[in-house]
Amino acid sequence: MFHLHSRLSQDCIIVGRFDLCLLLLMNDENYPWFILVPQVDQVSEIFQLSDNEQKQLHEESIHLSKVLSRVFEANKMNIAALGNVVPQLHVHHIVRYTADIAWPAPIWGVAPAKPYSQDKLNAILAKISHELGLGFLIE
Amino acid sequence: MFHLHSRLSQDCIIVGRFDLCLLLLMNDENYPWFILVPQVDQVSEIFQLSDNEQKQLHEESIHLSKVLSRVFEANKMNIAALGNVVPQLHVHHIVRYTADIAWPAPIWGVAPAKPYSQDKLNAILAKISHELGLGFLIE
Repeated sequence: MFHLHSRLSQDCIIVGRFDLCLLLLMNDENYPWFILVPQVDQVSEIFQLSDNEQKQLHEESIHLSKVLSRVFEANKMNIAALGNVVPQLHVHHIVRYTADIAWPAPIWGVAPAKPYSQDKLNAILAKISHELGLGFLIE
Repeated sequence: MFHLHSRLSQDCIIVGRFDLCLLLLMNDENYPWFILVPQVDQVSEIFQLSDNEQKQLHEESIHLSKVLSRVFEANKMNIAALGNVVPQLHVHHIVRYTADIAWPAPIWGVAPAKPYSQDKLNAILAKISHELGLGFLIE
């Protein structure tokens, strides 16, 4: 039975669900920062997924990256599976701008998280859900 | 015509070549830190690769991750495509230990690089080339 790690559910908003992964939004308006979490238990590394799960994760990651890059007009996408603090496998998809607060450094540890206001959260969810398809959002 | 970005050739040792990617070793003994660079020009994002190239990158990344994790007895693998400084697409594969100098933070910006001595370099290259197969190394 899959359970989202408590640290992820604390720091993120659950946006929706692909065939394999939950889609999360980090509650930090410094960057449009999304996370894919394969709904598979006891997996910390991508290579621990089955071949089919790896293929599916790859497809969902590519789809998400393309959409985020276009919708948010990214200067660069940062894609990373780290998991040193939260062992549950999760893959960061972060939209980077040459004008963002951490550029060109990786974002981790640079700036404290700035939680979204409800208005800003509604706006970013509307933007992304439109592109990813209706019915995608978890209410 | 593919050319390795000057910053990568300056900071890394070219270890070998898979079907798609060059395999580099970051010249920093703080971590066993390898990098895959698809030998494709003018590509900054994984989604800009062709479907076949994406599949091949994925296979080489999984193969490398498994070998590194086993050979170096990793506590965690960190896999990341960032590219904010070097726009040429490259994917970090970093072996992490709970006792390494940056743990549990991501490694970027934490500690200055410690270049390998020739003896240590020979040792790490021997270790990895044995696992990845003879004839793999670039002399």
